[in-house]
Amino acid sequence: MEGMEGKVMLKQRKVSGGDLGLRVLAFLLTLVAAIILGVDKQTKVVPLKLVPTLPPVDVPVSAKWQYLSAFVFHVVSNAIACSYAAISVLVLLANKGGKTGTVMTIIVLDLAMVALLFSATGAAGAIGLMGHQGNSHVQWKEVCGVFDKFCKQAAVSLVLSLLGSLAFFLLVALAAVRILKKTH
Amino acid sequence: MEGMEGKVMLKQRKVSGGDLGLRVLAFLLTLVAAIILGVDKQTKVVPLKLVPTLPPVDVPVSAKWQYLSAFVFHVVSNAIACSYAAISVLVLLANKGGKTGTVMTIIVLDLAMVALLFSATGAAGAIGLMGHQGNSHVQWKEVCGVFDKFCKQAAVSLVLSLLGSLAFFLLVALAAVRILKKTH
Repeated sequence: MEGMEGKVMLKQRKVSGGDLGLRVLAFLLTLVAAIILGVDKQTKVVPLKLVPTLPPVDVPVSAKWQYLSAFVFHVVSNAIACSYAAISVLVLLANKGGKTGTVMTIIVLDLAMVALLFSATGAAGAIGLMGHQGNSHVQWKEVCGVFDKFCKQAAVSLVLSLLGSLAFFLLVALAAVRILKKTH
Repeated sequence: MEGMEGKVMLKQRKVSGGDLGLRVLAFLLTLVAAIILGVDKQTKVVPLKLVPTLPPVDVPVSAKWQYLSAFVFHVVSNAIACSYAAISVLVLLANKGGKTGTVMTIIVLDLAMVALLFSATGAAGAIGLMGHQGNSHVQWKEVCGVFDKFCKQAAVSLVLSLLGSLAFFLLVALAAVRILKKTH
């Protein structure tokens, strides 16, 4: 009987370890995603024709993540998700008894992070894609030709953020499966 | 004892009824969101100066959801979510015994709809906001001044889709809470 109890506890700890590992991964991914886009900036000197009859003038133009609201949303969301991931690790380590209220709150907040991160990645992804391809129908020109470094850095941040959202997705899915298995 | 069992069954049926109602609501919201953006189209005659010395020429310009990849993503995602919602209602009605495998699959797919709908709403929202406000840094001009009807219809679709995503969010959150309460 004691051996069986030990086995169950070991299993619980094992699952909890996987949950913690995934949470730390989510923390790292969203942290790096927020930082990479948060420091993204590029200034380039572009020849600009101000007067048709005169030769072009060299004008410095800058790309910053603060210029685009979708990128601001992306950085803020990843910062929130990364802070929450860190706090949730601490809370779970402190809550070894597995109080139902705490577990419930964590699952719902994990789910909120899925919603937040997916919408932020969607928003930044749509604007990033528009910057990369442009759109002739609304006459929005592609800007990644000029701001190549800026765009590449944003793309890396987007991929990391997407992986971070998937980590939160897995946290919710695995928690649901784990609890369901307990009941049956 | 029999009375208590009856009470539990009644409670289960009540919860399941709430789940079904929310699912039907999610179905309706995503269906209407997909249709409203799916039929969104506006053609306007705009005076365009082709040659500076000649008077402007009236040119018809059109706005269609198919022109913007984010809007296509939005329509397709809502169509997928609405089809899934309808199928899940049928599956749950057929699965009255509450098989664990089915319940598990439904929760994970509900969660997938949360991710899909939030990313689609984020993407379409970011492009819609850009169309409404424009951005001087990348020189993308606002287009909702010309395509007012198109933009308003897209905004309604976005709000409905957001409500649909929240319905799926609630479905996952309530399912997690319901199962957790069973275990404790």
